[in-house]
Amino acid sequence: MAEAIDYQYIGTRPIRPDGIEKVTGRAKFGADEMLPGMLVGKVLRSPYAHAKIRSIDTSKAETIPGVFAVITGRDFPERAPGRGRGGFSENIIAATKALYHGHAIAAVAAANHAAADAALEAINVDYEVLQTVTDPVAAMADDAPILNEKQFTRSPNGPSSEPSNIAAHTITADRGDIEQGFRDADVVVERTFKTPMVHQGYIEPHACTANYTETGKATVWCCTQGHFGVRSQTAGILGMDLHDLKVVASEIGGGFGGKTIIYLEPLALKLSQISHRPVRMVMSREDVFRATGPASGSVNTIKIGAKKDGTITAMSAKLIYEAGAYPGSPVGAGSMCVFAPYEVENVRIEGFDVTVNRPKVAAYRAPGAPQSMYASESVLDEIAMKINMDPLEFRLKNAADEGTQSTYGPKFQAIGLKECIRKAMDHPNYKVPLGKDEGRGIAVGFWFNGGNQSSAEVHITDDGHVLVVEGSPDIGGSRASMALMAAEALGVPYDHIRVNVADTDSTGYCATTGGSRTTFATGLAVINACENAIVELKKRAAAAMDLDVDQVEWANGTASPKPGVNVEANPLSLAELARDAARTGGPISGRASLTAQGPGPAFSVNMSDVHVDRETGRVTVKSFTSIQDAGKAIHPDYVEGQMQGGAAQGIGWALNEEYIYDESGVLENPGFLDYRIPVASDLPMLDTEIVEVPNPNHPYGVRGCGETPIVAPLAAVGNAVSRALDLRLTELPMSPPKVLEALSNGAS
Amino acid sequence: MAEAIDYQYIGTRPIRPDGIEKVTGRAKFGADEMLPGMLVGKVLRSPYAHAKIRSIDTSKAETIPGVFAVITGRDFPERAPGRGRGGFSENIIAATKALYHGHAIAAVAAANHAAADAALEAINVDYEVLQTVTDPVAAMADDAPILNEKQFTRSPNGPSSEPSNIAAHTITADRGDIEQGFRDADVVVERTFKTPMVHQGYIEPHACTANYTETGKATVWCCTQGHFGVRSQTAGILGMDLHDLKVVASEIGGGFGGKTIIYLEPLALKLSQISHRPVRMVMSREDVFRATGPASGSVNTIKIGAKKDGTITAMSAKLIYEAGAYPGSPVGAGSMCVFAPYEVENVRIEGFDVTVNRPKVAAYRAPGAPQSMYASESVLDEIAMKINMDPLEFRLKNAADEGTQSTYGPKFQAIGLKECIRKAMDHPNYKVPLGKDEGRGIAVGFWFNGGNQSSAEVHITDDGHVLVVEGSPDIGGSRASMALMAAEALGVPYDHIRVNVADTDSTGYCATTGGSRTTFATGLAVINACENAIVELKKRAAAAMDLDVDQVEWANGTASPKPGVNVEANPLSLAELARDAARTGGPISGRASLTAQGPGPAFSVNMSDVHVDRETGRVTVKSFTSIQDAGKAIHPDYVEGQMQGGAAQGIGWALNEEYIYDESGVLENPGFLDYRIPVASDLPMLDTEIVEVPNPNHPYGVRGCGETPIVAPLAAVGNAVSRALDLRLTELPMSPPKVLEALSNGAS
Repeated sequence: MAEAIDYQYIGTRPIRPDGIEKVTGRAKFGADEMLPGMLVGKVLRSPYAHAKIRSIDTSKAETIPGVFAVITGRDFPERAPGRGRGGFSENIIAATKALYHGHAIAAVAAANHAAADAALEAINVDYEVLQTVTDPVAAMADDAPILNEKQFTRSPNGPSSEPSNIAAHTITADRGDIEQGFRDADVVVERTFKTPMVHQGYIEPHACTANYTETGKATVWCCTQGHFGVRSQTAGILGMDLHDLKVVASEIGGGFGGKTIIYLEPLALKLSQISHRPVRMVMSREDVFRATGPASGSVNTIKIGAKKDGTITAMSAKLIYEAGAYPGSPVGAGSMCVFAPYEVENVRIEGFDVTVNRPKVAAYRAPGAPQSMYASESVLDEIAMKINMDPLEFRLKNAADEGTQSTYGPKFQAIGLKECIRKAMDHPNYKVPLGKDEGRGIAVGFWFNGGNQSSAEVHITDDGHVLVVEGSPDIGGSRASMALMAAEALGVPYDHIRVNVADTDSTGYCATTGGSRTTFATGLAVINACENAIVELKKRAAAAMDLDVDQVEWANGTASPKPGVNVEANPLSLAELARDAARTGGPISGRASLTAQGPGPAFSVNMSDVHVDRETGRVTVKSFTSIQDAGKAIHPDYVEGQMQGGAAQGIGWALNEEYIYDESGVLENPGFLDYRIPVASDLPMLDTEIVEVPNPNHPYGVRGCGETPIVAPLAAVGNAVSRALDLRLTELPMSPPKVLEALSNGAS
Repeated sequence: MAEAIDYQYIGTRPIRPDGIEKVTGRAKFGADEMLPGMLVGKVLRSPYAHAKIRSIDTSKAETIPGVFAVITGRDFPERAPGRGRGGFSENIIAATKALYHGHAIAAVAAANHAAADAALEAINVDYEVLQTVTDPVAAMADDAPILNEKQFTRSPNGPSSEPSNIAAHTITADRGDIEQGFRDADVVVERTFKTPMVHQGYIEPHACTANYTETGKATVWCCTQGHFGVRSQTAGILGMDLHDLKVVASEIGGGFGGKTIIYLEPLALKLSQISHRPVRMVMSREDVFRATGPASGSVNTIKIGAKKDGTITAMSAKLIYEAGAYPGSPVGAGSMCVFAPYEVENVRIEGFDVTVNRPKVAAYRAPGAPQSMYASESVLDEIAMKINMDPLEFRLKNAADEGTQSTYGPKFQAIGLKECIRKAMDHPNYKVPLGKDEGRGIAVGFWFNGGNQSSAEVHITDDGHVLVVEGSPDIGGSRASMALMAAEALGVPYDHIRVNVADTDSTGYCATTGGSRTTFATGLAVINACENAIVELKKRAAAAMDLDVDQVEWANGTASPKPGVNVEANPLSLAELARDAARTGGPISGRASLTAQGPGPAFSVNMSDVHVDRETGRVTVKSFTSIQDAGKAIHPDYVEGQMQGGAAQGIGWALNEEYIYDESGVLENPGFLDYRIPVASDLPMLDTEIVEVPNPNHPYGVRGCGETPIVAPLAAVGNAVSRALDLRLTELPMSPPKVLEALSNGAS
C-alpha cells in the first residue's frame, strides 16, 4: 500500500458550492426554464402492454383551440439503425407497436394544460391488443409472445434462426475446467435467486424545455446526468448536426443512472419545431414509474464449489436480466462483477438479455452488479456456513489482489479488497453480540468504474480567482471535488475557485456523469487543465524574472526561481500574475481533453445486523456498516454520503422495493405511496469507513465511489436475514409477506 | 501594397447566423430573461440638474404591499477610488448630490409595476437645489458653479490649486515650432466649431435581470457590448469577487458604444440581494435619453497654416469636450485623431475634459473623433478653397503613409489613406456635375482601432463539425466573421461552424466589443485556437499514419503526409479524425488567449453632394460615398453595412441631431419624436467602396472597420453645405433654423 501523501486541500470537507441554492429553492431544476410564448407538451401513453397500432387519428385533436402541434411516431421517419438507434428511438415514441403499458404513442403542445389534456383525449388510436409477457423466464420460452419479429438472439454462435425475446446470450468467462473444479470441491452450492424490477427513487421527475428556431438551431434545457449524451441521442433521433443542438443541464434532483438516457427531449423539440414556440414537458410521477427506465429484474443461478479449507475451486453463473421492451439490460456488467472479488481458476459466466413487455430498463448505480452479486455473495455465505468458516476469513482467503487476473479479463493493479475485509474484521460492529432472531450478514461489493472522455477549461480572473469550466453535471458533489482538485493542483484556496458545469455549446466534450467516472476522468481533465495554466503562469513569471521557464517552479500558488537558480527574483503569486496578465500576454487560461485510462476498480465490504419478527415477517435493520476503497477521498463527506446513500437504496431493494405488475402488464404501484423506498425511520445510523488504496492511474489516487456502495447491501441484508432465520431466502424483496411465506414453507 | 491572397471562405458573403432568429422575434434580448418569482425594478430619478440631497426617507415606500426592497446611495458604501471607481459608481446612484436631471436617487423592487410606481412616489427626497451649468465653456469659467468640490484639474503641470470643472487638461502633441510653422504659411485659417451632445440611437433600451443568491454568487443577464466589462464594473461597485458574478450577454439591439458601461446592473443586483428574488429592470426611452451616456458635445478651435503649393506647415487644436456629470470625455481620442491623417512637422494638440450638469457621456463609434475631425477637416477644406486646390489633391499632398510619424505618436506601418484618396479621385460620384445651390464636400476619417485582450476555444464535435466559443458580444456580425476565419484556418465549410458567445463563467476573458477591436483581436484568438486544434489534429493523424507529427501537413480540412514523405498513408479529414477521437486520445479542442498587438489604423474618405434650400434652410443629401480601408474585409456585406451605418449616423449628427436643454438643465427632447435621427427617406443610396491594404499584424490583414465610418461624414456634409452656400458654417447640427440664421448673418 502506497504511503499517505500530505495534501493541502484534498481530503478536507468544505461547504458544498451548490448546497445553499438547493436548500433555499433558488437552484434551477429541469422544469424551471421559462421562455416567452412557451407551450405545454404532453404525451399520450399506451393503455396496453402489448398492442399493434393499426392507426392514429389526430385530426380532431389538431382543431382544438390552443393546440399548436400534435405528433406521432410518423413524425420520426428516420429509424434506420445507427441513425435513430433503432429501439432507442422507438422507446421515445412507438412506431408500429406499443410494447409496454405507458409507451408513448403521441404528443401534443398546447397553450395550457386544459387544451393539452383535451387534445390527448381527442386522439383516436386503433389498437390490436396482443398477448403480454412480463417475466423474463417466461419470455425465453419457445411459445412466448414475441415482442419484435425482427429480433434474433445475438450469441457467440451467431444469430438465432427464429425471432426471440432473448436479445443476447453472452459468455463473459469460460476459463479453466469448470466441471473438474466442481469435482474438486468438498462443498458445492447451487441456487437460483430472483430480484425484482426496482426504481432509482430520484425525487425530480424528468423535465425539459425545448426551443427549435427557424435557423435550424435548437436549445434544450433539461435535468440529465449528461447533456452531451442528450445532445447526441436527441440529434441522432432528429437527424440534426451536433453543433446545431445546444443542451443545457439544469440542477438535477437525483438520477442514479435513471437520467443517462432521454425520453422527452426529441418530442419537445419536434413539437417546438412544428409549433414555432418553445415547449416545456414535465413527467408526472406516474409517467416516471410507467415509462422511464428502472433497474432490471433478474433470475440468476449461481453454483460455487469450495474445499473444506475455504479454497474456492469453481464458480459458475447463469444470469437472466430483463431488458424491458427493447434490448439493453446491464447483464454484461452484472457478468463482469458477479465473481470479480475472487481469484479462481475455473469460472464460467453466461448471461441473457431478455425483452419483456415492461419499460426499457436504464442504469441504476453499478447497473447489473447488485442483482448478480446478491446471488453470488448469498451462495458464498451459505458455503462459509457449511464449511463452518468465518465469512470474512472465507472471502479473505480467496480475495483478488494486485496481479490477480480478474474473472472478467484484465489483471488488477493495486486494489483495496483485502484492506476492506481486514477493516471489517477489526470493526467494532463485527463484534457486537447478537440477540434472539438476529442475524449478521456480510457481503463484498465491486464495481470496475468508468473512464471515458472528459474536457475542462480553467480561467484565471484578473483578481486572481479561478473559474473551472467542465461538462459533467454535478450529481453528487462534483463541483466541490473539482474545486478541491483544482485548488490542490494550482495551490490556491478552495474558496478562490468556482466550478461551472457549462452547456454543450460552451465547453469541451464530457461523457455522461455515471459509472463513477466523473471525479476520476473529469477530475483528471481539470488537473491537466490546471497544469496547462501553470505552464502559462510559469512562462509569465519567467519573463518577469528574466529567467528561462525551466528555471521557475510552481508551488503553493506561487512561481519562484528553482532552488539553486542564482538570481534575485521575488516570487510571484497567482494573484500578482493575474493582475498583470493584460500587459504580459493576455488572459491566463488552460485546457485539457482526454479519454481517461485506468479507472481504479472499487471494492467494498458491507455488514448488517438485522432482527426478524417471526410473527409479522418484518425485518428491522439494527446496524449497517459500509467499508469501501475510495482510492483517495477527495471530499470525504461526499464519499461517505455515496456510501450511505447506496446502503439506504440497497436496503430498500433488499427489503421492500419492487414493481408489481398485474396479469395484463399494468404496473400497480406507480407512486411513492405504494412503491416503498426506505425513509429515515426505517434505517439505523449508516456507518461508513473509507479505505484509501490509491489508484495508480490518477495523480491523487482517485477511484470512483458512486456505484460500489449499492452492490453489497442486498446480499449483506439477505445473508443477515438468512442467518437470523437459519433459512436461505432467495427472492427479493424480503418483505413481510415473503418472509412469512418462506417461514411457512421452511424454504430453502 | 501587398498582393491579394486567394482565400477560400474569407471575403465571401454567407447568411448571418443570428439573422433569422432576430427577424422572427425568437432572439432573446436584454429584457427577455424570465425567472420564477421575478420582481420589477424601477429607479427614482432627480428632477433637478444640480442639487444637494439633504435626506431621503424611504420608510413609507417600504411598507407598500408588494414592495420587496428600496435602496438609495447609502446601500453602496464602498466608494473608495479604485473600489467603486469613484464617479463611475456615483453615476449609477447618487451619493450626496444629484448632478444631472435624471440622475438615479433611489431604486425599488416590487411584485408589479403598480407597486413599484407607488413606491417611487412614496420616497421623500429633500433636495437643496443648486445653480446649474450645462455648457462646457461656461463651466470652465472661474465663477462657474462647481459640480465636485474635490475635483482638481489634472494637467501636465500637476493639479490645479482650486476645485474646477476642468477634470483634465491634456497635451497630446507639442512637436516642432508651432509659431514658426504658422509664420512659414501663406494661408492660416483659425476657426472654432461647436458640436452638440448626440445620442447613439440604438433601438433597444438598457435592460437587465439580476439574480443574487444566498451563496454570494450572482448572475446578471443584460444587453451589453461586453459582459466581461459588466462583470468587472458591477463586481467593483458591489465589492464582489469576479468569480462570484456570472454575466450573460443577450442579443443586443444596437449599442454603438452606448452599451460599454453599466447603469442598472448594480441596482438590480442589490435589489435582488435584499429581496431574495430575481429582479428585472428595463429603461424607458426617456430614461435612456436622460440618464445614459450620449456622445460629448464639444467646442473645438483649429488653426492650420499651409503654403500656396498645399504643404501644411503647422496644425494646432484646442479641444473642449463635455464629460457630463463625471470626468471621462473622449477628448484624448479626439486629440489622437484630429490631425492623424497628415504628415506635419509642427503640431500642437491640447484638450479639456469638462464636467457639466448633463449625463455622464459614453462612447459613440470612434468616440471623440467625429467632433475633432469635423473641425480639422472643415478648416482644411477652407484652406484648399483659399489656395484654390482640389481638396483631395490637398489631402494627398500631405497624407501620412507607411513610416510617417503620426501626430499622436507611433510610426505608421502599412496604411491605406493614399489608396482611399486616389479611389475617391477616380470615383464617378466625384465627377457628377453640380446644380444650383449644390455643393460637394469631402473629408478624411481616421480611427486608430483597438487591440486588447481576447480568448477563444474551438471544439470539434464527433460528427466533424466545429463549435467556436468566445466572449465578444456580436454587435455587427462577428459570429459570421469568426466563423469565416475559423473556416479559413481549419479548411472546413462555413456552415460546419457555429459560433457561441458564451457567458463569463464559461469562456476565457474577452474585452468589450468596441473600438473596432473584435474582428481583429477576438478573430486572432479564434485563428490561434484553430491552429491549436490543428496541432492536436495533426498529432492524431500522425499516430494513425505512423509518422512523426512534423511529417504531417494540414490543408483543406485534411491531414496528409507532407510532400516527399515516403509512406503510403491515406489523408485523414477532420470528420474522420473527429469520429475516431474517443479512442485516439479524447475530444479534440483548441484554445488561445492574447493581448492583441498592432490593430491596423483605418482611414476613410467620404464625399457628399448636398442641395441647400435657401428658402427653408433644408439640406438634402443628394449622394454619399464612403471609401474605407478595411485591411481585409472578412465578410464584405458587414463592412459595407458598417460604412453605411456610420454614414447615416454621421449625416444625422451633421444635419439634425442634438440634445436640447432648457435653462434649468432639463432635456427637452428625450424621445425619437423630438430627437430626430435620419430615416430611410432622409437618405440617398449610401455608396461604399472597400479598400484593402492588409494590416501586417493580422494573418488575414484585418483592420477594425466599425469606428472610422462615422468620423468623416460630419465634415463631408459640412464642407458640402459650406461650398453650396459659399459660407462656412461652424455649428452642428446644420438644421434649417441654423442654416437660415447663418444665411441671414452672412457668417462666417
